[in-house]
Amino acid sequence: MKVGVADTTFSRVNMGRYAIEELKTHASVAIERVTVPGIKDLPVACKKLIEEKRCDIVMALGMPGGKDKDRMCAHEASQGLILAQLMTNTHIVEVFVHEDEAGNDAELAWLAEQRTREHARNAVKMVLHPNVLEREAGTGQRQGFADAGPARP
Amino acid sequence: MKVGVADTTFSRVNMGRYAIEELKTHASVAIERVTVPGIKDLPVACKKLIEEKRCDIVMALGMPGGKDKDRMCAHEASQGLILAQLMTNTHIVEVFVHEDEAGNDAELAWLAEQRTREHARNAVKMVLHPNVLEREAGTGQRQGFADAGPARP
Amino acid sequence: MKVGVADTTFSRVNMGRYAIEELKTHASVAIERVTVPGIKDLPVACKKLIEEKRCDIVMALGMPGGKDKDRMCAHEASQGLILAQLMTNTHIVEVFVHEDEAGNDAELAWLAEQRTREHARNAVKMVLHPNVLEREAGTGQRQGFADAGPARP
Amino acid sequence: MKVGVADTTFSRVNMGRYAIEELKTHASVAIERVTVPGIKDLPVACKKLIEEKRCDIVMALGMPGGKDKDRMCAHEASQGLILAQLMTNTHIVEVFVHEDEAGNDAELAWLAEQRTREHARNAVKMVLHPNVLEREAGTGQRQGFADAGPARP
Amino acid sequence: MKVGVADTTFSRVNMGRYAIEELKTHASVAIERVTVPGIKDLPVACKKLIEEKRCDIVMALGMPGGKDKDRMCAHEASQGLILAQLMTNTHIVEVFVHEDEAGNDAELAWLAEQRTREHARNAVKMVLHPNVLEREAGTGQRQGFADAGPARP
Repeated sequence: MKVGVADTTFSRVNMGRYAIEELKTHASVAIERVTVPGIKDLPVACKKLIEEKRCDIVMALGMPGGKDKDRMCAHEASQGLILAQLMTNTHIVEVFVHEDEAGNDAELAWLAEQRTREHARNAVKMVLHPNVLEREAGTGQRQGFADAGPARP
Repeated sequence: MKVGVADTTFSRVNMGRYAIEELKTHASVAIERVTVPGIKDLPVACKKLIEEKRCDIVMALGMPGGKDKDRMCAHEASQGLILAQLMTNTHIVEVFVHEDEAGNDAELAWLAEQRTREHARNAVKMVLHPNVLEREAGTGQRQGFADAGPARP
Repeated sequence: MKVGVADTTFSRVNMGRYAIEELKTHASVAIERVTVPGIKDLPVACKKLIEEKRCDIVMALGMPGGKDKDRMCAHEASQGLILAQLMTNTHIVEVFVHEDEAGNDAELAWLAEQRTREHARNAVKMVLHPNVLEREAGTGQRQGFADAGPARP
Repeated sequence: MKVGVADTTFSRVNMGRYAIEELKTHASVAIERVTVPGIKDLPVACKKLIEEKRCDIVMALGMPGGKDKDRMCAHEASQGLILAQLMTNTHIVEVFVHEDEAGNDAELAWLAEQRTREHARNAVKMVLHPNVLEREAGTGQRQGFADAGPARP
Repeated sequence: MKVGVADTTFSRVNMGRYAIEELKTHASVAIERVTVPGIKDLPVACKKLIEEKRCDIVMALGMPGGKDKDRMCAHEASQGLILAQLMTNTHIVEVFVHEDEAGNDAELAWLAEQRTREHARNAVKMVLHPNVLEREAGTGQRQGFADAGPARP
């Protein structure tokens, strides 16, 4: 299993490092990492990891700023990531942490690490253990903050 | 007839289970199910069900949260689902239940089950009984809450 | 000349019936009709009418609801219809009547019928009489409500 | 050099006529014109001018209305025009005049004519005189209203 | 290494000139430059630089105006640039300076030059020194204004 990890210099947390650490804890994986300036550079970076480096799945890690323009960038990047997946029939796990989700730098760093690690585990499940995900269907999972849980307890 | 069912661990209701139950009640169908973390993972999951598992139609089941960011995710997922359909010439029935459509958890669970079941019947009609849908043209059908009915009664 | 007509069960007016009636009045046409649940199902339905049923042009008929979520659905469907046209080099005439364009059910029914009929005539012109459209260039045509007319009378 | 000119019957000014007049003044060009009902019909109309009529460049002329729904239509049409260009590796010069850019009908007519003529000259430059455009880089050119000029005079 | 530089006559700063200057300072590069009227012309211009001029990477330089309509243009252009990258598996470095990011013309000129130069260095790193970018992962880099820095100092 080969996992691509794409992250950015714009992010204020080294999300790529946490992703790689967590991936290696949960599976015997080869890693291809690439760092680009910002989240809008991620779609093609991920597509290249899939097509040129033969990754089975890719994690796209980014930290959009808190302004309106940043939200639009995140939207554009997300659309591009979905398109890249459709063009390659390969999953790209988007892990975006919006700067305004956290109240301060410490919480931001915690949230970025936590969400990255949880999604790294999701990436492993998607490729190696799809039946585990099916057992979690409809259980209100969240990555980073607490799970919402099922509506019917 | 082979039907793909894609749902999420983010959803707070096991929509995939209801879809499969209802599909089996109305037709002799083979089912391919896959569960992904969130709605933005659905487009490529559905495309893979069509192209790699040879499904004739797919149901994409998701439950977007009630915040602005969640609405944007739903929009991005919807665009991706439409694109996946155009790339495969195959229908994907989108069944999204927005968390803020319901007043409480019980209503949310009811709505998610009801809408999923009604759309499962639509999926069967689209593949096996298109003439039934044509007879319902312009009658103001809704899935979940009450039908709107025709403007000219 | 073969015209595809795609409409929905969500619509509160049987727009497909008016389209077919009007098309037959103005040209000797073969019709392929398909009815889908909602407007987001229209893009692939129209593409299939073009590619699988060999239609020369398609009418996509829908009636989005009046809420914000409905407006977003209409936007997503429109983008999909434009993409379907670009993938097939074939025109799809979008006829959307937003529920909040009319003050009551009677006006809604009138508007849906009127706009559908006018666009059916446009569809015929686009395929058979492009020179008629060229003569109407810049004249402020509207479908349903009154024409705006040219800015320089 | 062959130039495509696509305009609409929705527009309140015959923008196609001004485009053709201006193009003929500045270059020895063959013209292919097509008129469609509205701006959302322009993307595929332009793509067909490129692929079926072998145009070297196309002008897409439209006049979106002043309401929110019209702005959304313009957005959808613009995305389609960009996609049509990427699918054909051919420039399409979008000339949109929003009805609410002008205070009255006379100004609207003036603006539509002026912007169309200036963009017709741009189209000629893009194909025949790219070095002229390079000399104008960063000079704050506008089409219709007065130029903004360079930030460093 | 061959770098494409696409800029606009709409911009109020000659961003292309700064890009070329900076690129030549940091690497032995061949340059292909093209100037188009506005930012919506950039996606296909960049795609042509990649496919017809064989550029290894492209810089897309633009200066959107400060009004709502301009923001929408920037959004449309950005989506097109992401799509162009996905269609070519080649990076396009988007350098957009929004007119309303600066308080006056002098600051606007400074910001446009600064951001262009910093992104030119990024373009060189992306092609020739990807390991340098990886070392900067998660350090909160910004182009133009001051860096945000890492959340955990």
